[in-house]
Amino acid sequence: MKVKLFVSLIMLTICFTAFAQEKQSTAVAEKGLTKVCVMYPFAEGKTFDMAYYETKHMPMVAGFLGSNLVKYSIEKGIASGIPNQPLPFMAIGTFYVKSLSEYQAAIGPNRDAIRADFPKYTNISPVILVSEVVK
Amino acid sequence: MKVKLFVSLIMLTICFTAFAQEKQSTAVAEKGLTKVCVMYPFAEGKTFDMAYYETKHMPMVAGFLGSNLVKYSIEKGIASGIPNQPLPFMAIGTFYVKSLSEYQAAIGPNRDAIRADFPKYTNISPVILVSEVVK
Repeated sequence: MKVKLFVSLIMLTICFTAFAQEKQSTAVAEKGLTKVCVMYPFAEGKTFDMAYYETKHMPMVAGFLGSNLVKYSIEKGIASGIPNQPLPFMAIGTFYVKSLSEYQAAIGPNRDAIRADFPKYTNISPVILVSEVVK
Repeated sequence: MKVKLFVSLIMLTICFTAFAQEKQSTAVAEKGLTKVCVMYPFAEGKTFDMAYYETKHMPMVAGFLGSNLVKYSIEKGIASGIPNQPLPFMAIGTFYVKSLSEYQAAIGPNRDAIRADFPKYTNISPVILVSEVVK
């Protein structure tokens, strides 16, 4: 009887500890990280294949980044938030990394492969913003 | 003995269910949401007071959005990711909302208050991108 109770308590402790850690990692995950936003400006005649970008290009680049990559996101531009202004960007892909220098070291040897993949989904030259997550 | 075992199993089930839901809500929280990114382009002579933006402006706007706002983030531009190119944006503030029309309905009546606050932290006219979170 005592052994059963003891085992139950141990299991519950392990479970709640895992739960607490999950909650914490969710809450503080982004602040202080470095973001690398690859932004594709909209203009007449520009094209962007979101399906290829989501299923091929971004997973390839993410694969180069290893454990330095915390997460990545993709957004599809819909409109300008200011009436009568053109769409600013057709798409933005963002890498959240722990270390910018590690990011650069990982991308460097793969730059040619990344650039060779561009024409497969777009004819846009991206703008790249490196930023720090403040909140 | 059987009752204890039964109670332990019930407790473990509840605990693991809570854990599973937490993981799921983390993983799918952003996909499908609408992002409104307020982007402040860098140029010579432009200024941006990040402390005011973080502690006053963004909390004020977030307060107008109510339960439609899932979260908001702030990033501080550090550099262009392309060598020898200028910093694209000094700062970006992003609202993740469930409904764009609700966002617009909430901002509309408060537009004057929001604009009147701009000169307190910047002399930049922002670019605003409305986008859909794909991943």
